[in-house]
Amino acid sequence: MEFSSKLIERAVNEFSQLPGVGKKTALRFVLHMLKKEKEEVEGFSESLLRLRNEICFCKNCYNISDKELCEICSNPSRDERVICVVQDIRDVMAIENTGLFRGQYHILGGVISPIEGIGPANLTVEPLVRKIESTGVQEIIMALPATMEGETTNFYIYKKIAAFNITVSTIARGIAIGDELEYADEVTLGRSIQFRVPYSNQLVNK
Amino acid sequence: MEFSSKLIERAVNEFSQLPGVGKKTALRFVLHMLKKEKEEVEGFSESLLRLRNEICFCKNCYNISDKELCEICSNPSRDERVICVVQDIRDVMAIENTGLFRGQYHILGGVISPIEGIGPANLTVEPLVRKIESTGVQEIIMALPATMEGETTNFYIYKKIAAFNITVSTIARGIAIGDELEYADEVTLGRSIQFRVPYSNQLVNK
Repeated sequence: MEFSSKLIERAVNEFSQLPGVGKKTALRFVLHMLKKEKEEVEGFSESLLRLRNEICFCKNCYNISDKELCEICSNPSRDERVICVVQDIRDVMAIENTGLFRGQYHILGGVISPIEGIGPANLTVEPLVRKIESTGVQEIIMALPATMEGETTNFYIYKKIAAFNITVSTIARGIAIGDELEYADEVTLGRSIQFRVPYSNQLVNK
Repeated sequence: MEFSSKLIERAVNEFSQLPGVGKKTALRFVLHMLKKEKEEVEGFSESLLRLRNEICFCKNCYNISDKELCEICSNPSRDERVICVVQDIRDVMAIENTGLFRGQYHILGGVISPIEGIGPANLTVEPLVRKIESTGVQEIIMALPATMEGETTNFYIYKKIAAFNITVSTIARGIAIGDELEYADEVTLGRSIQFRVPYSNQLVNK
């Protein structure tokens, strides 16, 4: 693609480094930015700089935050004895949106994946083990993706913390609410039969 | 969506104003920016500011450029007697990529669309007429989209410049190279039969 100006070429190159954005989409973004008011573009530009310069990781759970402790870890009404282990910050947001979890999180920063060269040392497994050792954690809920890598990570962490006297669970897998049984894959359906939940339990939870 | 920091919320809002970008994609972009080096984010931020502050419109063809006259208009080897009228800068890039046009362009900035409230006054029709009046333009090639709005604009401009002694043509419509006839829509196929091209002409052009 040839551009009528070096400035446009540079901005297109910058935008096209965003995940899932090619040159054509980047050009659309650039033409959109050109139509905006000067102040709006300055605001955009400034918010990127502040984002990169002021955001840090929460020293307790590794969530991104603008303070030393994130809002969840510094909230006294959250139960610090229950820790939900997730892959990244987007999972925290998804679980927070359900409004059904009142414990704290621990963000691993990924899952073990030999193919991508990610081992336990690249993740925040050690800090998790230390947190369990030194504080009164009673339950760990593993909420990692239901993939080979997620299961490997589950197993690795379980082995690491099995010696401590705590409950370790994973989130339930099964047929999603609203899904038809006939369209479900057999592994999911099989698992949801194997790990069926007593109906009386569900009534108690309501 | 709830964010763990106001800075993230603000950056997500900025990104989600880009065309075709929702909150989830914007969050992916923000997390990507957080993983980048500080210098890279500063470079991105600066390129946006320079883009907005230094880019202007070419005073001859209304292409975007960082000079008064764009690279095409200031190139002495381009034929200023042949002008291709297009909707926006992306069409200029598409035609430039073919390498088969050696004239100059005129960017309308849109097409006449009463539904979207775009009339001739919102487009650069007047400057085009003035250019034809005052310089030695010999041919106008209309390269607008083959839509109702594009055809309306073609007709409007044709009426405006019909009095001048110049050739006005539109780019050819027809079956695309590599397309099967049976899958073509009947309007396109009908047009490509109606405006068939003598085979001898095509041999001459090769």
